[in-house]
Amino acid sequence: MQRVRVQNFTVSEDGYGAGEGQSLERPFGHVDPGDLVGWAFETASFPARTQPGGSRGLDDRFTRDFANGIGAEIMGRNKFGPQRGPWTDHEWLGWWGDTPPFHTPVFVLTHHLRPSFTLGDTTFHFIDTGSADALERAKQAADGLDVRIGGGATTIRSFLEADLIDDLHIAVAPITIGAGSRLWHDPDELDDRFHHEVIPSPSGVTHHVYWRRDR
Amino acid sequence: MQRVRVQNFTVSEDGYGAGEGQSLERPFGHVDPGDLVGWAFETASFPARTQPGGSRGLDDRFTRDFANGIGAEIMGRNKFGPQRGPWTDHEWLGWWGDTPPFHTPVFVLTHHLRPSFTLGDTTFHFIDTGSADALERAKQAADGLDVRIGGGATTIRSFLEADLIDDLHIAVAPITIGAGSRLWHDPDELDDRFHHEVIPSPSGVTHHVYWRRDR
Repeated sequence: MQRVRVQNFTVSEDGYGAGEGQSLERPFGHVDPGDLVGWAFETASFPARTQPGGSRGLDDRFTRDFANGIGAEIMGRNKFGPQRGPWTDHEWLGWWGDTPPFHTPVFVLTHHLRPSFTLGDTTFHFIDTGSADALERAKQAADGLDVRIGGGATTIRSFLEADLIDDLHIAVAPITIGAGSRLWHDPDELDDRFHHEVIPSPSGVTHHVYWRRDR
Repeated sequence: MQRVRVQNFTVSEDGYGAGEGQSLERPFGHVDPGDLVGWAFETASFPARTQPGGSRGLDDRFTRDFANGIGAEIMGRNKFGPQRGPWTDHEWLGWWGDTPPFHTPVFVLTHHLRPSFTLGDTTFHFIDTGSADALERAKQAADGLDVRIGGGATTIRSFLEADLIDDLHIAVAPITIGAGSRLWHDPDELDDRFHHEVIPSPSGVTHHVYWRRDR
């Protein structure tokens, strides 16, 4: 059975996945990316890691699962880039340089379509017909493998509200952000529908793992 | 770089990976397998699982990593079967039925050679020239992927003594066994050579993860 998974998505203790004021220079808005997702940067298996070394403990168990069994990703437009409104050009190809770390088809949810393009072995498609339709297309593209909901918080929330997610891994970093893109008020909000395990890591983040009670 | 990994190997609180008196009916000797490795049976990703369902929490993060990036396994003869001494016939093909859960070449350390055979998509080879030679052959067969040291405890210990292991995941089950095949007296024995994280699981087992300080 194809599953719909959230993996390695990080929020602050007050539930924000990014701060306010995203820009080209500040992809997480007023939040320093290292403060939020530094736990992942430090692991040997972080998908965009270019240096040797890195930890191989608990945190690495999560980052090395990033691509495991995944055949497609769905992301929100604000994960794809800092632009808002209609595209003024098509030169922006994402934050990730010549080799995006996805290596599968990626479906970007947007109100402003643009042509698909391929970079490295990742192809980006743009969808303006909503979560359910994007998931249908992503499942087809994934060819039997699972679909990852890549974020941001608004995108994950919309899939949760439509009850389209089978399991989630959310890391809670020991910082507060105060304003921005919010996933939840409290990690226990999902407990009515999901089994929920809480796993503190020696790095300081706390991993929350959820899977559906009824699937 | 090819790594040499131990994964999902379970010992008791007193450090035993199996009890005394292994037989066809009792692969773990006097120990009930469920008491020792039940934590893995319960997970959705346990390699030999045939039923739907299963947990997808912390324990599952470990079992779903079993095959991830692995290209060959090395095991001791007592993991392969209960026979001792020269083979009286070649009818024994392992404990795992028609579809062994390895799906890679497997190298069995033994003093008593027998011909290689293939079952499902697993090929078993028999090696009587020791750990270092087996590792050389397994690395070649793994074709750039990592090599798993599958156990039992005696086999893992011999690779540790030869300093051939890069990282280990050992689960400690909340039972005592008292006698049998022993991996260690204490989980901290490896701390001089390895980083070591201790991760208690809601299931009652404690996961110990180690990776080399110098690699």
